[in-house]
Amino acid sequence: MHDKLDKFMSEKITIIDERLHQLLSPIDVSATLKSAMTYSVDAGGKRIRPLLVLATLEDLGVESVDAVTVACAVELIHTYSLIHDDLPSMDDDDFRRGKPTNHKVYGEAVAVLAGDALQALAFDGLTRLESTPAEQVVQIIRLLTEAAGAQGMVGGQMLDMEGEAKPLTLTEMETVHVHKTGALLSFSIEAAAILADLNEEKTQKLKEYAWNIGLAFQIKDDILDITATTEELGKTAGSDTLSDKSTYPSLLGLDGAEERLARHHQRAIDSLEFLGTNDSLLSLFADYIVHRKS
Amino acid sequence: MHDKLDKFMSEKITIIDERLHQLLSPIDVSATLKSAMTYSVDAGGKRIRPLLVLATLEDLGVESVDAVTVACAVELIHTYSLIHDDLPSMDDDDFRRGKPTNHKVYGEAVAVLAGDALQALAFDGLTRLESTPAEQVVQIIRLLTEAAGAQGMVGGQMLDMEGEAKPLTLTEMETVHVHKTGALLSFSIEAAAILADLNEEKTQKLKEYAWNIGLAFQIKDDILDITATTEELGKTAGSDTLSDKSTYPSLLGLDGAEERLARHHQRAIDSLEFLGTNDSLLSLFADYIVHRKS
Repeated sequence: MHDKLDKFMSEKITIIDERLHQLLSPIDVSATLKSAMTYSVDAGGKRIRPLLVLATLEDLGVESVDAVTVACAVELIHTYSLIHDDLPSMDDDDFRRGKPTNHKVYGEAVAVLAGDALQALAFDGLTRLESTPAEQVVQIIRLLTEAAGAQGMVGGQMLDMEGEAKPLTLTEMETVHVHKTGALLSFSIEAAAILADLNEEKTQKLKEYAWNIGLAFQIKDDILDITATTEELGKTAGSDTLSDKSTYPSLLGLDGAEERLARHHQRAIDSLEFLGTNDSLLSLFADYIVHRKS
Repeated sequence: MHDKLDKFMSEKITIIDERLHQLLSPIDVSATLKSAMTYSVDAGGKRIRPLLVLATLEDLGVESVDAVTVACAVELIHTYSLIHDDLPSMDDDDFRRGKPTNHKVYGEAVAVLAGDALQALAFDGLTRLESTPAEQVVQIIRLLTEAAGAQGMVGGQMLDMEGEAKPLTLTEMETVHVHKTGALLSFSIEAAAILADLNEEKTQKLKEYAWNIGLAFQIKDDILDITATTEELGKTAGSDTLSDKSTYPSLLGLDGAEERLARHHQRAIDSLEFLGTNDSLLSLFADYIVHRKS
């Protein structure tokens, strides 16, 4: 990984983790519930969504004391969605990132509730911003409800489940990803644009960037499922092929998928031209997404 | 039921239902998800929480175009919690209010997602208030995240589950109810107080009222589980006794529970003195909660 991005990520992950624990710390009604929530928050994610919030602001040269809290809100939504996705009635996964899934440790009922409480906590965090005007706070909360709910992530998860029963076209598959994965990634970048009070034209460029890295992210995931080992992934490799799931490689072939990945990567980079530099964190992020090994 | 309350409830329920459908209407990513969400929203609840929002404002003589949306937000949280509570891994209920539960109709995975999306929709609704200043919107959203999350309803649900394994003291049982049921009822009344810009002293009185009717509501539920028929309840009567659950009648006897119910009822009425009338909607509501048959 590029040194600049590497340094940025390790520095910021510490700050994100600290703030996540601060947000969890007042919880004292049920110790088990708090423990279950904390378990999944600490389960070693790559923190891509919160890092994107911070990277966008850094590239824009804007400082906001509220950036880390906004970053944590999207990570809490992402975390809750993983807990619920792993449930026996959903993907029925026993392991995630090499650790037992929430319901394997705490049982299904607690896992449902821990997910529910993490969703509420995400929005709660956003009501505690310190220096952001209330109008913008409301705007950010709405952006997250849309990204997280039936018109965003949850809608995408639903389409994904419905899609498992039948082969999807490329367009249908793209619709799944734009909602299931893309919505939260876009939130990260758009929320940062709101905190930075960015103008409409530049915000539009960042949205293009978000759209393209969202799809690149998913294409890379599909490719890794074929080319990486189970050990590298921390989850079962080749599971898409086994489940006959429509993926970019299954629809386009591995070469076609690589080509499409390169195209979205290039478009993401192009949309960052307005930043006036070649080594913005966001462009390094795009490189990272495309070249990652897991 | 008292004519005035009866008229108020039937008039307002129509308006609440209409607004709930408006909030659901933009959903178009997955028709099945929308259908599952709508199914439970339409499943014939008593709409007590949203009615309390509107009754409080009416008693305070304050009109707000945003009252109905705030009322719907709390109903959406309540609805999502019922879907998740009914899941096989939680209470495993096949029927609610005489209709098959969400997962019996749509399957468990969809029920989990419908609940998740309804929670997001509740907060989404609150970001769309029209005449309320943004500072107050943020205040209301925080009130709802606290009432709904680990420090409120979800925390109470967790304590309730933990309590099933052992006999509870009266204090422990009260803690369960204050969180599991009381938090959303209190939200309804406090959110109305915010919309009405009510002073601290009167808000405190309304909080006392909310606390007392919350507990009265639960005591009455426990009593009805013994004295009402399955037909009247629309769910299995006597289920608490069968499951050896700690209830007010099991801890205090039926007479003791009735006495305690009367005490909370009286305190609720007393805290409304500042309204300067004997037939406020909130006092009629307290009567209704105590005298209801289901």
